[in-house]
Amino acid sequence: MINKETIRDWFMHLQTDICAQLENADGKASFITDAWQRPGGGGGITRVTTNGQIIEKGGVNFSAVWGKTPAAVLQSLKLDPSLESDFFATGVSIVIHPFSPRVPIIHMNVRYFEMSNGTWWFGGGIDLTPHYVMTRDAVFFHQQLKRVCDKHHADYYPTFKNWADDYFFIKHRNETRGIGGIFFDYLKDENDFTKESRFAFVKDVGSTFAPTYVELLTRNINVPFTTKEKEWQAIRRGRYVEFNLVWDRGTKFGLDTDGRTESILMSLPPQANWAYRHDVDPASEEAETMSYLRKGIDWAGMPEGQATERQ
Amino acid sequence: MINKETIRDWFMHLQTDICAQLENADGKASFITDAWQRPGGGGGITRVTTNGQIIEKGGVNFSAVWGKTPAAVLQSLKLDPSLESDFFATGVSIVIHPFSPRVPIIHMNVRYFEMSNGTWWFGGGIDLTPHYVMTRDAVFFHQQLKRVCDKHHADYYPTFKNWADDYFFIKHRNETRGIGGIFFDYLKDENDFTKESRFAFVKDVGSTFAPTYVELLTRNINVPFTTKEKEWQAIRRGRYVEFNLVWDRGTKFGLDTDGRTESILMSLPPQANWAYRHDVDPASEEAETMSYLRKGIDWAGMPEGQATERQ
Repeated sequence: MINKETIRDWFMHLQTDICAQLENADGKASFITDAWQRPGGGGGITRVTTNGQIIEKGGVNFSAVWGKTPAAVLQSLKLDPSLESDFFATGVSIVIHPFSPRVPIIHMNVRYFEMSNGTWWFGGGIDLTPHYVMTRDAVFFHQQLKRVCDKHHADYYPTFKNWADDYFFIKHRNETRGIGGIFFDYLKDENDFTKESRFAFVKDVGSTFAPTYVELLTRNINVPFTTKEKEWQAIRRGRYVEFNLVWDRGTKFGLDTDGRTESILMSLPPQANWAYRHDVDPASEEAETMSYLRKGIDWAGMPEGQATERQ
Repeated sequence: MINKETIRDWFMHLQTDICAQLENADGKASFITDAWQRPGGGGGITRVTTNGQIIEKGGVNFSAVWGKTPAAVLQSLKLDPSLESDFFATGVSIVIHPFSPRVPIIHMNVRYFEMSNGTWWFGGGIDLTPHYVMTRDAVFFHQQLKRVCDKHHADYYPTFKNWADDYFFIKHRNETRGIGGIFFDYLKDENDFTKESRFAFVKDVGSTFAPTYVELLTRNINVPFTTKEKEWQAIRRGRYVEFNLVWDRGTKFGLDTDGRTESILMSLPPQANWAYRHDVDPASEEAETMSYLRKGIDWAGMPEGQATERQ
């Protein structure tokens, strides 16, 4: 029988495991540990590393919070805001900003929520934001996600891939944040799905994060880069900030409801630049990357070998 | 008789005049001119300068737009979103980011809105965001604003000063963006106020911007600064980004309603940094600045001479 403690403990273990794998891959990064308490109940462990060999700024956040369900939460669930109920929420959130513009930014989140009225669900996702889109890597990344999804249900990958395209979209720029990935929410026990099968899927998503990202690090860490490419990275990081602060519902919700600001904004890059009407040469690699920042690209359906030739 | 063309023409003239005064004060800055059209009607002139002697990134935006009143505008006015009506809106918006952490960021906006049902109002404000709060400058700045306000109505300064304290507040950091200034909205013809008297006030606010900022530039441009102070500036610029993208209603409204993104986000700094739990030494100048980033400081009521001694 899976109860909230099982899920919380698994998430806490996942945090430790991911930090160890990232430290190992980086070779120098060392995550500090910052435990915090939430006044209304529960708390979290925020782990942060800066100035590793590969990772410039990385955060892996675990939290397990509970208490009276805030009116804002009830409203977001389209429930009566005056309803008396308790909630429990636990999850792991990760954002990694590498030094090299040739290594992608990655984000992962797995979460579980339940209320005293008996409702519960899982949510989460993984998405990749390369400063330069390498088609071979994009194919690899999506195929990894598809493999994990397909183990659990044939509808998962196509549904959650489209959901990520729609979610990680910077409306005011008419561009996606990166090459997407998967996003899912409100996974509950309906049709043939049980709490066991939903949790098994979420665990697989969580466990696939570190090996997938380590492979992408390994592939790209020795690619040399120029000052101009670092400038492009800073502009792309600016777009990352724009998405997180303007459109990301999780960030907005956290900031609106007195979440722990430092843990929420751990996702922001160490540095970001803005330039008025930053233009790219139509024949450049930057322009090629821009052409991939749109919804609906079937990365998983492309052979990785063929994609390589396009680079 | 003041009509919308009178106001628009005055705003357009104000833009030209402010750019000339800023170019003159900077000595090297030169504003490029970027005219744009709005698909639904009207357009604007965005003027931007980068890498001057003093101004690292500055934008002075004029716009005059019209058409069918968008449903989102009607909703924000608590009107029936299906109402058939036309609107006209014109204004000037400015944000200046200087190179030196010893020179403050400044923002100014004056605007006019009218609808075909006959309603109209003015709005606007000026606020100052020093990276290091110099009390003498803060007193000077607020006394300038108070002088302008007092010419028009004794209630203006206290009301609009408090409004700015409330508006330019970064809720998730529990700090004000800077030392505030004045903020006002929905200034219409009620009580003894006429369109003439409201417009006269808005013109005075617009006209006081350039000489006030030039005085602050002149006072601080020769103050030497260190690398550590540049890093602090980058952190403070990060907070500026957080305010504009998370809390500024004008920015959010513009991005939500397909405004011209490049003109709206002209306000963002050329570079900003984020650090997890960035701490300041309690005895440092940075800590002193933090102590001033709160609501309710009566800057205008302090003698400038006395304030000087505190620096």
